Amino acid sequence: MRTIVPFDATTPKTRLAPVLDAAERREFARAMLEDVLSTLASTPAEPVVLATAPVECDVPVEVDDRPLTGAVNARLGPAPTAVVMADLALATPASVERLLAPDAGVTLVPGRGGGTNALVARDPSFEVDYHGVSFRDHRRLAESAGAAVSTVDSFRLSTDVDEPGDLVEVLLHAPDGAAGSWLADRGFEVAVEGDDERVVARRR
Amino acid sequence: MRTIVPFDATTPKTRLAPVLDAAERREFARAMLEDVLSTLASTPAEPVVLATAPVECDVPVEVDDRPLTGAVNARLGPAPTAVVMADLALATPASVERLLAPDAGVTLVPGRGGGTNALVARDPSFEVDYHGVSFRDHRRLAESAGAAVSTVDSFRLSTDVDEPGDLVEVLLHAPDGAAGSWLADRGFEVAVEGDDERVVARRR
Repeated sequence: MRTIVPFDATTPKTRLAPVLDAAERREFARAMLEDVLSTLASTPAEPVVLATAPVECDVPVEVDDRPLTGAVNARLGPAPTAVVMADLALATPASVERLLAPDAGVTLVPGRGGGTNALVARDPSFEVDYHGVSFRDHRRLAESAGAAVSTVDSFRLSTDVDEPGDLVEVLLHAPDGAAGSWLADRGFEVAVEGDDERVVARRR
Repeated sequence: MRTIVPFDATTPKTRLAPVLDAAERREFARAMLEDVLSTLASTPAEPVVLATAPVECDVPVEVDDRPLTGAVNARLGPAPTAVVMADLALATPASVERLLAPDAGVTLVPGRGGGTNALVARDPSFEVDYHGVSFRDHRRLAESAGAAVSTVDSFRLSTDVDEPGDLVEVLLHAPDGAAGSWLADRGFEVAVEGDDERVVARRR
């Protein structure tokens, strides 16, 4: 299935600024993209990277500098299409296969904080809207279009890596991927902090 | 299957202090326990609440004021036993059935931040240790005991409700449960804040 992987090749991962500088954020985002593409390669997904600027890749790249919602909608149409975010560093072939399996008009994977980390549109009338509480909006849009909605309950796909607090999930659950190795090489490690034993990624 | 549901009946949910006072935290913790027990009632799980102090409940309650690890280990033994945390307000019967299904010696569900939100011990030699990075420790302990380990990939079971940032997940994904209704009654609603459109639970 054609699978759009939106990728910010310009100023990615700004919320990681407290722990990574701009050059590091670009490298880390690129490592996560590599992990996502490598995972998709073991599934029936046929990825196309939808990038805001040219990026070198083993899969086809389409450059489109419009905002995410418009750029994705321009590519939805009659053929079933998946959209998988480029920062799902914990994704595995098994979790992606659960995304592709349902026969519903629209399949959704919520992200933490109301986002939509992945979806499959089989109903040709479905359009995305990534603003605000997109998971709730996508469910409503699909239902009001009369499409059956399936939701995939996956920790791995629901974990988008946006904020410093997310880095520990990469170290714990995807340590051998490009993103996990990149973090380890830059001195990040799992640490337990404070009286309440909070588990965090700490930089040596 | 016998299912232990550990519940802090004394000073629960201290990390929610920035948004809920002590009486509210007790009420909210109690509402989440109700949701978990109601979900378990639709599954083959046979819950026993393991509480730090007496609590009124429709299911058996065992009071044990020892720290969590010791209190749980005192109840593991030859019979397969599940342990499901009392703050999994997003749990559904389908997600719990995925927890109970694998035939592995030890089945684990990671929580965000390295915790273990739920597990099933079929291997009688397995013991828990909830300190520190318990998910990683449990996997190592099980593997070193020669037990096969299965991991359940569930956003709903991986979401324990500990911190203010978790409340929006209850409003979005379990609005009709006791905990979701309690939050709505106390004026919590889903809001989009800031330039980066962060989705949060805001109190009116």
